[in-house]
Amino acid sequence: MAEPKENVLMEKIVSLCKRRGFIFQSSEIYGGINGFWDYGPLGAELKRNVKELWWNTMTRQRDDVAGLEATIIMSPQIWKASGHVDTFSDPMCDCKGCKKRFRADQIEPSSGVVFHFYGAEDRSMNKALLDQLLADKSEEEQRKGKERYLELLKEERDADILKEELETHLRSGIPEVRDAAADKLRQLDSLERCTEHFAVLLPHGKPRESAEKKASVFFQQKGIKVPRFSAVRTENVENTVSYCNDCGCELTAPRPFNLMFKTYVGPVESEDNVAYLRPETAQAIFAQFKNVLETSRQRVPFGIAQVGKAFRNEVTPRNYTFRSREFEQMELEFFIKPDEVVEAIKGRVTPGAELDTRHPALDTSSWGWEAWHKYWVEQRIAFYEGIGLSRATLEEYWQKPEELAHYARACVDILFKFPFGTQELEGIAARSDFDLSQHARFSGKPMGVFDEELRAAWGKLPKEKSDDLWRRYYENRKKYLVKMGVEAEQAAKDATNDANGLAKGQYIPHVIEPSAGVDRLILALICNAYSEVTETDDKGKSETTVVMKFHPRVAPIKVGVMPLLKNKPELVKKAQEVRDLLRPWMNVFYDDAGSIGRRYARQDEAGTPFCVTIDFDTLGEKPELKDTVTIRYRDDGKQERLAIGELLNWLLPKIR
Amino acid sequence: MAEPKENVLMEKIVSLCKRRGFIFQSSEIYGGINGFWDYGPLGAELKRNVKELWWNTMTRQRDDVAGLEATIIMSPQIWKASGHVDTFSDPMCDCKGCKKRFRADQIEPSSGVVFHFYGAEDRSMNKALLDQLLADKSEEEQRKGKERYLELLKEERDADILKEELETHLRSGIPEVRDAAADKLRQLDSLERCTEHFAVLLPHGKPRESAEKKASVFFQQKGIKVPRFSAVRTENVENTVSYCNDCGCELTAPRPFNLMFKTYVGPVESEDNVAYLRPETAQAIFAQFKNVLETSRQRVPFGIAQVGKAFRNEVTPRNYTFRSREFEQMELEFFIKPDEVVEAIKGRVTPGAELDTRHPALDTSSWGWEAWHKYWVEQRIAFYEGIGLSRATLEEYWQKPEELAHYARACVDILFKFPFGTQELEGIAARSDFDLSQHARFSGKPMGVFDEELRAAWGKLPKEKSDDLWRRYYENRKKYLVKMGVEAEQAAKDATNDANGLAKGQYIPHVIEPSAGVDRLILALICNAYSEVTETDDKGKSETTVVMKFHPRVAPIKVGVMPLLKNKPELVKKAQEVRDLLRPWMNVFYDDAGSIGRRYARQDEAGTPFCVTIDFDTLGEKPELKDTVTIRYRDDGKQERLAIGELLNWLLPKIR
Repeated sequence: MAEPKENVLMEKIVSLCKRRGFIFQSSEIYGGINGFWDYGPLGAELKRNVKELWWNTMTRQRDDVAGLEATIIMSPQIWKASGHVDTFSDPMCDCKGCKKRFRADQIEPSSGVVFHFYGAEDRSMNKALLDQLLADKSEEEQRKGKERYLELLKEERDADILKEELETHLRSGIPEVRDAAADKLRQLDSLERCTEHFAVLLPHGKPRESAEKKASVFFQQKGIKVPRFSAVRTENVENTVSYCNDCGCELTAPRPFNLMFKTYVGPVESEDNVAYLRPETAQAIFAQFKNVLETSRQRVPFGIAQVGKAFRNEVTPRNYTFRSREFEQMELEFFIKPDEVVEAIKGRVTPGAELDTRHPALDTSSWGWEAWHKYWVEQRIAFYEGIGLSRATLEEYWQKPEELAHYARACVDILFKFPFGTQELEGIAARSDFDLSQHARFSGKPMGVFDEELRAAWGKLPKEKSDDLWRRYYENRKKYLVKMGVEAEQAAKDATNDANGLAKGQYIPHVIEPSAGVDRLILALICNAYSEVTETDDKGKSETTVVMKFHPRVAPIKVGVMPLLKNKPELVKKAQEVRDLLRPWMNVFYDDAGSIGRRYARQDEAGTPFCVTIDFDTLGEKPELKDTVTIRYRDDGKQERLAIGELLNWLLPKIR
Repeated sequence: MAEPKENVLMEKIVSLCKRRGFIFQSSEIYGGINGFWDYGPLGAELKRNVKELWWNTMTRQRDDVAGLEATIIMSPQIWKASGHVDTFSDPMCDCKGCKKRFRADQIEPSSGVVFHFYGAEDRSMNKALLDQLLADKSEEEQRKGKERYLELLKEERDADILKEELETHLRSGIPEVRDAAADKLRQLDSLERCTEHFAVLLPHGKPRESAEKKASVFFQQKGIKVPRFSAVRTENVENTVSYCNDCGCELTAPRPFNLMFKTYVGPVESEDNVAYLRPETAQAIFAQFKNVLETSRQRVPFGIAQVGKAFRNEVTPRNYTFRSREFEQMELEFFIKPDEVVEAIKGRVTPGAELDTRHPALDTSSWGWEAWHKYWVEQRIAFYEGIGLSRATLEEYWQKPEELAHYARACVDILFKFPFGTQELEGIAARSDFDLSQHARFSGKPMGVFDEELRAAWGKLPKEKSDDLWRRYYENRKKYLVKMGVEAEQAAKDATNDANGLAKGQYIPHVIEPSAGVDRLILALICNAYSEVTETDDKGKSETTVVMKFHPRVAPIKVGVMPLLKNKPELVKKAQEVRDLLRPWMNVFYDDAGSIGRRYARQDEAGTPFCVTIDFDTLGEKPELKDTVTIRYRDDGKQERLAIGELLNWLLPKIR
């Protein structure tokens, strides 16, 4: 029963977003384009604030993360290494009739009668042959021939019988008739036939002709102008997903449809010039790992952060901006030492259970992947809490071992309770050394790092210990290589080389990946902020208004500045002074149009946390209130008085 | 003589950018991808700062501009309306030999001998025919036939002579020979021939065979297995641009090659699903003009600003990041009243010469397009000055009337003196009402606005005045419509309707468009900042270091914080306190590795304007200096002492 109510709420949210300029349909004046959304003035500010906060939190406020801004179009090799060219696809079926394409897992089951058509032959061809055959005959002969032909057609065996008839002509006394018959027989042997089977599903009770018509159209497209079938068979079916939901025609078997948008770089549209719009921002980070490492004075453990657009040619974009075809990501790849390396250096890896990752000790040097993974889950949840999504609105979902990608050691999804269901905002995955290893193999460029501490420590390890670490590292590497299709002997050889590197201080870093979607976060913030206030006046008339309770940190406008009256130059002048005082530090909206109540309501809908009103007291009507203003809170409508001189320092900590 | 020196400078800049992580080649580990560049940690910060400053200056610091963030992929109709589908192209020639594609205006003139080949016929076909013809003959006949055939080949007229020979067979006494000859003659008439002419340019002295070989390959690709030519002609040419610079083969005539990257949206790659990556951000602003107007509480004059990626499939990307295939734009569309409307309301339009747009009066209500255009040119130059590009490094280029697009009334290019030449950073165009009019016509949605002031004023105008304004508005509208191919009578009718709207307060806004490229601005800032300092020590040994003199507002790192020594915990602790004090307000780089001189040098290369050093005096070795730090200036290396408590307030105004 919850469904309709939820839809009502989403409808209200969508309507507000359009009405107040948070989100517009892309290309709306041209009827829109499915799966693409624009951010209007308020939406653009909201999105900027969120991205800026993420960037600040993840890079500028930390010593151990560097930023990157890579291109959307990259070498297609990157997507071969990442596996996207081969496996980033949805299974799709094509309707053989209407040519529509469906996601195999989204076909509605249907029931009815299936008509199977076999052995389509071209009837028009036989007709043409007969016409030619009769051309040289007397009128009487022609009349008889035509009658015979029409009979043949009814019997639906005309080709064979025509052949029989022609064979009698071969024995004719007239040379021309003999020659013509031989000629036609040759042509008859090259008759258009189609061995393909075709089937149409009709609801019970629908006439057979409807199916035949669809079958005829299908075979006509194969070059058989007037199809005749050697056999038609019917079958009753229940809940089949093999037929088109729109027209009932047979679907092809599911085939993978790659979700990357494809284009061509350079003036020639050839296979050599194919490129893709990135389906994620992460891969550029791996591809530039060595460049960043070498130029940023970072050492493992450290991260590389990137914010940017990504594109997926979703077959069915849905849930408003939640699953769209063009979207933005905020991704961090945090590179860490493999556990074997930590253990070699520190003697042990701190077990996950011992850690309070929310208050990490300064020394993280004994952290293995479990600790780092736990740490980033906590960091990311803290980030969401810091912009107004309380823990109560979030869910933490630890993927089960059977759900994990083969290279992943753990993955946590942070979910938000949207009106249309609880859905993923961010995934935090421990991806082992899979990504760097893939790019090392595909590019032929080493992706390992050198660690002097490891080299020094390794030399001092007891043999038993170093053998154990060597063996564990070796096994992990071999497992990865074999999984990737490297032949067993070669894999053992390569893994041996890799494990031998440890003694020289060399290893391939592992990675923890907190990967967030900007647009779904914006939608979560909008859904979370949406609230309605109903007020009833003295006359019993009630009015419902919308208040968007954004956290001040993300609110598009931080403060509305308003002179009480528009037509009092002193009020206006003072209000503009206040506006100009605050503006260098925050986004200010100056509004002097309409009643003050209506202006407050407008800012409530925009989600502006504070309004500042300049009134006659500000000008000194009550001398003790001179140069003070009214501050009005969005969330409860309460007001208080503050000196203009204190305003900036009062506001700044609240919005940062 | 300036050329080599400039290249040396660019090489140094490119090298520094890679070495310090400003700019990397995209997908470098895979050999790169031509025309795509990534920003490393320092570059990403620099770029963020520039974009943030632009956004702040253009939207948040103004009452009259709203922001927008639209998608990169939009409805393809938008690019039909804008003219990009039809006219956004370079003329390209294809080599008929090696199939390479060249920009017509970039072909190098060449000289030599041209070999022209005419009337290619398939020699292999005749051979096959002869074989068939001889199949039924006696051995002696066959031998003679072959000899004759070989002679024919030498004469290179075999098809005709073969025909003659076959005609004699038609008169043969043997029916089989007659039949066969008739059959072959029919086949001979369908012989593979190619009437296309082909030509190859060879340098003087190169053998004719080389040209024949290329011609043979060309005709073989046309299905003529063994080409024979009815005529070959030679010609001496000088400085021709009709032949391939690589292989000498003939080029096709220039054909337009559209510069938009094309892709398909949705699962089917059909013409219906074609979409383009936007080649500019501006069009989304026009397409969403009405939505923004209706939701943002703005009235004309006002602007809509957008920052975002755009893509152009440049045939020859060049000058490092200056002309790349994926780039970012910062565009403002500032919508204004047409001059006729200003004049109707205010009685006159303030002439451009009267204005000091740098210090505009509060009242801009009598400004026409000339004043607004001048105003934005000044605003934009002031922006560049504010981030460190002095007027001396810039040039202002006013396009000549014959250079203007047909709809533009004026266009100013702001140029920067790059080491590779003086090139455009930004264009500021007065584009009339062209863009909104185009989208109104293509979408069928009205793009006009209603202005109560105009309606009221129009009613009070003397008839002579309103007739004059009506006529001028009418003429402009008609001129536009006729230019766009609207038939004269219809154009007059539509223009009449448009001009009649004035009396009802309706008009289509005009627009001023300051359009800047982010990447070329980043490159300008890098080139402008690059400087070398050579220091000679006591021993006469000199060392040259690079100092990147970025304006503090755009510098990637604002301040380097350093303990004098790494191994003194008190210094480190204090330095980290200073880092944590500053970090919430600016990008801080903490560095404790190496000598203090080397650390300063590293920050000089990164362009960090200030370094703060924590030394023993900070800890109170000299009690009067307790809790003070050394501030070191990047540009002159000078140092001064400042109390930690004053640090933030000292730094903030310098970096904002």
